[in-house]
Amino acid sequence: MLDWVYNPAKPFAMAAYQHALDRQLRLTKPPGSLGVLEEIAARLCGMQNTDKPRLARIQISIFAADHGVAEENVSAFPQVVTKEMVRNFANGGAAISVLAKHLGAELEVVDVGTCGGTRDIKGVIDAHVADGTANFMHAPAMTRMQLTAAVEAGYAAVERALDRGAQLFIAGDMGIANSTSATAITCSLLGKSAREIVGPGTGLDRAGIIHKAAVIQCALDLHSSAIKSPLDLLQRLGGFEIAAMTGAYIAAAQHGLPVLIDGFISSAAALLASRINASSSGWWFYGHTSTEPGHVYILHELGARPLVNLGMRLGEGSGAAVALPLLRQACILHTKMATFDQAGVSRG
Amino acid sequence: MLDWVYNPAKPFAMAAYQHALDRQLRLTKPPGSLGVLEEIAARLCGMQNTDKPRLARIQISIFAADHGVAEENVSAFPQVVTKEMVRNFANGGAAISVLAKHLGAELEVVDVGTCGGTRDIKGVIDAHVADGTANFMHAPAMTRMQLTAAVEAGYAAVERALDRGAQLFIAGDMGIANSTSATAITCSLLGKSAREIVGPGTGLDRAGIIHKAAVIQCALDLHSSAIKSPLDLLQRLGGFEIAAMTGAYIAAAQHGLPVLIDGFISSAAALLASRINASSSGWWFYGHTSTEPGHVYILHELGARPLVNLGMRLGEGSGAAVALPLLRQACILHTKMATFDQAGVSRG
Repeated sequence: MLDWVYNPAKPFAMAAYQHALDRQLRLTKPPGSLGVLEEIAARLCGMQNTDKPRLARIQISIFAADHGVAEENVSAFPQVVTKEMVRNFANGGAAISVLAKHLGAELEVVDVGTCGGTRDIKGVIDAHVADGTANFMHAPAMTRMQLTAAVEAGYAAVERALDRGAQLFIAGDMGIANSTSATAITCSLLGKSAREIVGPGTGLDRAGIIHKAAVIQCALDLHSSAIKSPLDLLQRLGGFEIAAMTGAYIAAAQHGLPVLIDGFISSAAALLASRINASSSGWWFYGHTSTEPGHVYILHELGARPLVNLGMRLGEGSGAAVALPLLRQACILHTKMATFDQAGVSRG
Repeated sequence: MLDWVYNPAKPFAMAAYQHALDRQLRLTKPPGSLGVLEEIAARLCGMQNTDKPRLARIQISIFAADHGVAEENVSAFPQVVTKEMVRNFANGGAAISVLAKHLGAELEVVDVGTCGGTRDIKGVIDAHVADGTANFMHAPAMTRMQLTAAVEAGYAAVERALDRGAQLFIAGDMGIANSTSATAITCSLLGKSAREIVGPGTGLDRAGIIHKAAVIQCALDLHSSAIKSPLDLLQRLGGFEIAAMTGAYIAAAQHGLPVLIDGFISSAAALLASRINASSSGWWFYGHTSTEPGHVYILHELGARPLVNLGMRLGEGSGAAVALPLLRQACILHTKMATFDQAGVSRG
């Protein structure tokens, strides 16, 4: 079970990457003057093994699940909002729904463990593992079987994306209390205390943040001695949606599907994925920097430099979606600009 | 002559702005979780006096001109590149041409003083003031008449944008040696030495930068005692394209046309415009942070927080164009997202 997560990521086409860097030097602009857009275009050429990188077909998969630890009052919103937002995603009213339509991206909503299930909501993909995780204040968040099912829900989403011919994959998260889980994961992976990493999530006040830190620290103290691997950590402190994203990020890299990572929750899953399978991170781009304080710790650990920093903290894949046009513009500039020779422009 | 530059900017519709901020609190997301996109949407509502801000029709005006100071070897590229790039803009091969087409923006190229003129290039708007400015190492860059003509070329571009129903205006620059002019302007406005502000422009090496700083300092020493106003400064140390952008930024604010400002050259013009007419800056957004060192000084002075920081340093309006999709997404989220009541989602 889950043996596949250790399989290596697909190798880049290094020749295509080098060829792209060379082309960037021949385009009618001072060398390097398009900044990170040049490197992005070259990486996409290497990933797609082409000299004309394209990001026309995008899949956005939102993984929704509930968290047992929500009963500790660690969120500004009640648990029922997870399912309510699943309906909002399906009905087109959420931020990510609006962005996906605007961007011409395929949006799918995957229930990996929403309390009560979502079979009454049309259009939601049923990968329901359980009615939320267990409260990790008292017990592991999930069983090994549940972990496997959740990680494989991420794999399945990537398979659907590949079947549709997706050229880029975005994972989004929905789950009341999931910043508590992501913070616990981050603390455990980086050897930090809860107090160092904790933040307001969807909008806790100061007292709420202090309480949330205490809950997380309690859970860290309970589980730390039993955690021998990143998968142990995910099982004990994770959420079903975080496990699904972890699986998706690894699977995408193994299949050569570029990924654009969103904010704090997504990045906690990415950090886990990189610890499980270091080769996978070569296929990832980073969309935005969240205001949730833990995010910068993860980004630093991953050596990530996100495309934008707009003060967002919404999740749902929204920060990645907002940054997507920048990747597309990197592609179009690389493909369509004239070279010095073509345009008859003198070089410096 | 130029009396119009002191006329106040159009007032915002404050009620529409407040109404928009209120709507942001009712959309299905934690309050504030869309970060700066919320404030951007609200400002655009105030500017357009609407509850449905739109950025469908964009005008990008590239102002091209040559600089007498180019003869001091302050650029990595020869002067002829200004005209060669005008042809490249017109032919669709330059970065801004590619971006404008991709974004569905109207692109116009305005010759305000390219050496030798550009009448042989089809589609270029002729607002030619002279064959480049004078070398400001030895004399004022332009006469008062030339200054007036160049500033009014910017006004005329805004008039064309309004005639076309533009909802946002982007100015771009092309002019070999114009970072030398923009640096001199920045030094003079901020009371800095050339050595503090100078940078590589299109790609000078270390020795080239030291030489460029010496040229700029020489010019500052020559002209400083004669500079009594921002218009004096523009006349003595500016370029025709910088003067046109300065005029355009003021005119846009007076006519209630939102502006998205590009990088270092554009921002030097914006700083001048704000010194000439402080009310105009309320109508400006800032696209990106350039790697040219002077840009951060100007941004700080203007209290500006650009949308992206991608390591770009190309000019042509390219950094503004790259950031445009973020403004558009702010609009679409504001307009299309469901409210808590509409979606039946519980509040925190």
